[in-house]
Amino acid sequence: MGQPVKPSSSNWFIEQQTPNSAHMYCISSVYYLGKTKFQDVAILELPDLGKTLVLDGKVQSSIRDEYIYHETLVQPIMLTHPNPRSVLVIGGGEGATLREVLKHNTVEEAVMVDLDEELIEITKKYLPEFHQGSFDDKRVRLVFGDGRKFVEECTPGRFDVVICDLTDPAAGSPAIMLYTLEFYRMVYGILKEDGIMVTQAESPSHTGRSFASIYKTIGEVFPITRAYTLYIQSFDAEWGFVLGSKRFDPLDLTEEEEARRIEARRVNLRFYEPRIKRRLFTLPRNILELMDRGVVSTDSNPVYEPV
Amino acid sequence: MGQPVKPSSSNWFIEQQTPNSAHMYCISSVYYLGKTKFQDVAILELPDLGKTLVLDGKVQSSIRDEYIYHETLVQPIMLTHPNPRSVLVIGGGEGATLREVLKHNTVEEAVMVDLDEELIEITKKYLPEFHQGSFDDKRVRLVFGDGRKFVEECTPGRFDVVICDLTDPAAGSPAIMLYTLEFYRMVYGILKEDGIMVTQAESPSHTGRSFASIYKTIGEVFPITRAYTLYIQSFDAEWGFVLGSKRFDPLDLTEEEEARRIEARRVNLRFYEPRIKRRLFTLPRNILELMDRGVVSTDSNPVYEPV
Amino acid sequence: MGQPVKPSSSNWFIEQQTPNSAHMYCISSVYYLGKTKFQDVAILELPDLGKTLVLDGKVQSSIRDEYIYHETLVQPIMLTHPNPRSVLVIGGGEGATLREVLKHNTVEEAVMVDLDEELIEITKKYLPEFHQGSFDDKRVRLVFGDGRKFVEECTPGRFDVVICDLTDPAAGSPAIMLYTLEFYRMVYGILKEDGIMVTQAESPSHTGRSFASIYKTIGEVFPITRAYTLYIQSFDAEWGFVLGSKRFDPLDLTEEEEARRIEARRVNLRFYEPRIKRRLFTLPRNILELMDRGVVSTDSNPVYEPV
Amino acid sequence: MGQPVKPSSSNWFIEQQTPNSAHMYCISSVYYLGKTKFQDVAILELPDLGKTLVLDGKVQSSIRDEYIYHETLVQPIMLTHPNPRSVLVIGGGEGATLREVLKHNTVEEAVMVDLDEELIEITKKYLPEFHQGSFDDKRVRLVFGDGRKFVEECTPGRFDVVICDLTDPAAGSPAIMLYTLEFYRMVYGILKEDGIMVTQAESPSHTGRSFASIYKTIGEVFPITRAYTLYIQSFDAEWGFVLGSKRFDPLDLTEEEEARRIEARRVNLRFYEPRIKRRLFTLPRNILELMDRGVVSTDSNPVYEPV
Repeated sequence: MGQPVKPSSSNWFIEQQTPNSAHMYCISSVYYLGKTKFQDVAILELPDLGKTLVLDGKVQSSIRDEYIYHETLVQPIMLTHPNPRSVLVIGGGEGATLREVLKHNTVEEAVMVDLDEELIEITKKYLPEFHQGSFDDKRVRLVFGDGRKFVEECTPGRFDVVICDLTDPAAGSPAIMLYTLEFYRMVYGILKEDGIMVTQAESPSHTGRSFASIYKTIGEVFPITRAYTLYIQSFDAEWGFVLGSKRFDPLDLTEEEEARRIEARRVNLRFYEPRIKRRLFTLPRNILELMDRGVVSTDSNPVYEPV
Repeated sequence: MGQPVKPSSSNWFIEQQTPNSAHMYCISSVYYLGKTKFQDVAILELPDLGKTLVLDGKVQSSIRDEYIYHETLVQPIMLTHPNPRSVLVIGGGEGATLREVLKHNTVEEAVMVDLDEELIEITKKYLPEFHQGSFDDKRVRLVFGDGRKFVEECTPGRFDVVICDLTDPAAGSPAIMLYTLEFYRMVYGILKEDGIMVTQAESPSHTGRSFASIYKTIGEVFPITRAYTLYIQSFDAEWGFVLGSKRFDPLDLTEEEEARRIEARRVNLRFYEPRIKRRLFTLPRNILELMDRGVVSTDSNPVYEPV
Repeated sequence: MGQPVKPSSSNWFIEQQTPNSAHMYCISSVYYLGKTKFQDVAILELPDLGKTLVLDGKVQSSIRDEYIYHETLVQPIMLTHPNPRSVLVIGGGEGATLREVLKHNTVEEAVMVDLDEELIEITKKYLPEFHQGSFDDKRVRLVFGDGRKFVEECTPGRFDVVICDLTDPAAGSPAIMLYTLEFYRMVYGILKEDGIMVTQAESPSHTGRSFASIYKTIGEVFPITRAYTLYIQSFDAEWGFVLGSKRFDPLDLTEEEEARRIEARRVNLRFYEPRIKRRLFTLPRNILELMDRGVVSTDSNPVYEPV
Repeated sequence: MGQPVKPSSSNWFIEQQTPNSAHMYCISSVYYLGKTKFQDVAILELPDLGKTLVLDGKVQSSIRDEYIYHETLVQPIMLTHPNPRSVLVIGGGEGATLREVLKHNTVEEAVMVDLDEELIEITKKYLPEFHQGSFDDKRVRLVFGDGRKFVEECTPGRFDVVICDLTDPAAGSPAIMLYTLEFYRMVYGILKEDGIMVTQAESPSHTGRSFASIYKTIGEVFPITRAYTLYIQSFDAEWGFVLGSKRFDPLDLTEEEEARRIEARRVNLRFYEPRIKRRLFTLPRNILELMDRGVVSTDSNPVYEPV
């Protein structure tokens, strides 16, 4: 057998993934370790992932592939919409979702609603590579508060695009209420008549329960619902995304037209490109079967993750 | 925060993945724990993966998705070849690669060469769900010995298909010598003039060094070389496969023709289907760039994994 | 820095010690892994401890130092009593406590009450080095059932010596009820007028809460109460023991007289010797202060460990 | 079973203890994480131990029981010597060994030699509770450099007391050379004719190889050699100490005389007291047998720990 290699330190971040498994990452430096009013926050340097944001013990994004995650979350619907001018981001504390939205020169306003003002302050200070100054873009309006309450009180038909970049619907977390039927109905209400929304949708691996539920729940509300998945190393899993659309279907958009829009809007991309949709949207049989078995999540009977 | 969930036992299998990260799995039962002359063998029940074969501390396959891994390794080249009659499997101790080969009624003989006779005995006894009796198929010939030596001594032009289902090219492992230019040249030699080969090719995640090297090395030998990848939960990673072909290109095979062959040969599949090639073979930009930087592995200068 | 040494396997037993710490042991073989009606049972070979019995994720004893633990639990009170003939052991599933009792040729009967008949069967089969045939000694009577119920229903003044070798008073465990004031009062009742009892008493390290509570609670019932401690490697901690006595005080027994009794009774010892009492019974100031702060545990308000 | 308790964070310090075991501690805050020219330094807040200094992945001392460790290292020999005026401390970077020395009003000068100037700077800033200003005491002289070289070049018969508070003699560490016969001979040389020395002596648990070797090696040089041990929670082990003396034997010092010296010198103690020597110096049979088997460590054939 070969010589074992010594880890770079004796300090480890252990991310519980299911009740019966966890991933251990060696920590080489600590940028920030603390608590806000709402959550535990760690910004760590991990040799495998680089600078990494961890909330309540879960990796949110790392410098290694945050651009893959954020482009995959944001770009398919932004490009599917022929003229996205008004965009709402719910969550997305590290500012990278906002960064992806602002790449489209069609965008006139981007409202970001996040519960945790302290987190945004930490993010601004420690994660400039992530937000890249997005918070200072004059098209941006930051709102600190509950995303659900914002949606409830919002004028109907206000946005072209809504993007939910939320923490997991974990047992006991208030985020659960941003994955229910009632919530998606309200999101439908604040979208324009050709509006489109997307949400991060947990992993189809392990039980895949939340992923399937999100697909089914959005499918109850929107005429067009599409799920897509991609392996994200930082999440140590295949990751799911679900979009709901009133009129435009990403599968109807030709690769040529999509390329044209990227160029016209001067969108600078590192990962996403039109041909990659073949990978994202061609789901394996086992994932399709899982989606079929999904249960609709409601306010009175929400679906959530056990850990 | 939610209540934490207690793991099902206090015994854990910890798989080192890189020098700076590892995956922890709770163990609910132990079917077998021991050593053969060549390697440490564990057959464990893991709540997340089910029955799992572990060699030298690395998951080889689990009941949860071994069919996904083995179909993805075997089916693309078996279907790309119009009439695979004679097949060589190198490695593949759990018998599932053999099982996938034998699904094709075109196959007249399948030779499997594995170094570790004791492992095959353990496999036969403890992993019937994996091999499903393949070792008893009258088309099969089992050879115990070094795969490289077998290939060296084999008659030229003997096989239609060669499948390498080997352990990692880890520092110090003899498997390193089954991933070099010299080895692939010998494999080329024992293939018929329209023969085709495939190998498991490590993960493109982390350094991706071995994956890129395998792609480059096979590319030095075969006129047609294709890499494809898929997330495999048991490997906790996106996983790579590389095929080398003398004449037939899987990308030239239409989905219709592939479906026809599946039916004609009466191949019963759980995961693979013609349309899934769109996912497998559409590689993201970051993986393509990684492949470009691959280094050819040679006997005198082999590429291997540090752990 | 030196070369790191590779652990002997990738399988680990992780013993949670407090909510914020745990000990990891490499597993080299598994003798038994399963569940009885009452508890999870593992019998493991650990390179650091040798053959080890683990119940509900906690090391109960290992071949490395079970003789140290069991002699320290049993011998001080057996030797303090001038003529122990009738002994009750509550718990002590591995049979080693019984073994220590039976070493005294004064003993005419030893009753052992254990809840878990399946565990005794497993013990008999897999731990012969621990029980050394004690279960077959004709002086022994095995009773399967609840230790507390046995004591409740026992004839008063029945035993010279009572030894409690119980699992931890952990949150939710029925063992909690064998550490309360009401229980010790019943034990007092079934002891003869010069009887003596001892219990394993958890660790004075960490919070030391249970240890201090056991000392205070026994002190409410018996005129003579003594605590003593010793580092036990298998428990990865300094370990506590508390004895309650109606008449005889181990601190009044001279080393000479104790040596005489050992010889007269033909007690064969590997660890314990009269002079070691100087170590066991000389408690550091910080432990004495901890004991002062102990809270009496009662049926209606029991003291227990959080994990 | 009871409800499991959630650890206070997902970040852990894992201390390798033997090749086959490790201790995991949850990290609640990080005061400092970095490297000096000589070693990795971490100052962590661990819920179980409080503020803790970690060098090269090993706990050096924690606020929970550093006073127990440092009083036990320093006080027995300081009190055994009737008039310690000149003291040398080798190692002891956190300043707490110095603090214990300075408690004796007999001390006129205390020289401390430590290799790592950067570490002392970190210590001064982050560990005021440990050094308590000792570095500023006018009797103190700090020397940055190799302890062995200092001893080699020192005037013979210069010190009453020498205290070695060194890191482990781990494979590859330069500290190995401060545990050899040649080194102890030099220490003998720089002590006055009634001088006395002590060293931390690793754990008698696990292999106990270093502990036994230190005892044997000092025994080759000094007419009076005594080993003593105590459980130290921060080291997660019974810990050993070995003293070598030219004239005075701690076992000849009555508890009364020792108490008188404590009072006369106005030594303020939290843990140590004369009666505790009964515990410290009464070694169990298994440790005595281990000491008998110790091997003398020499410059050409040093004894060291594998990890």
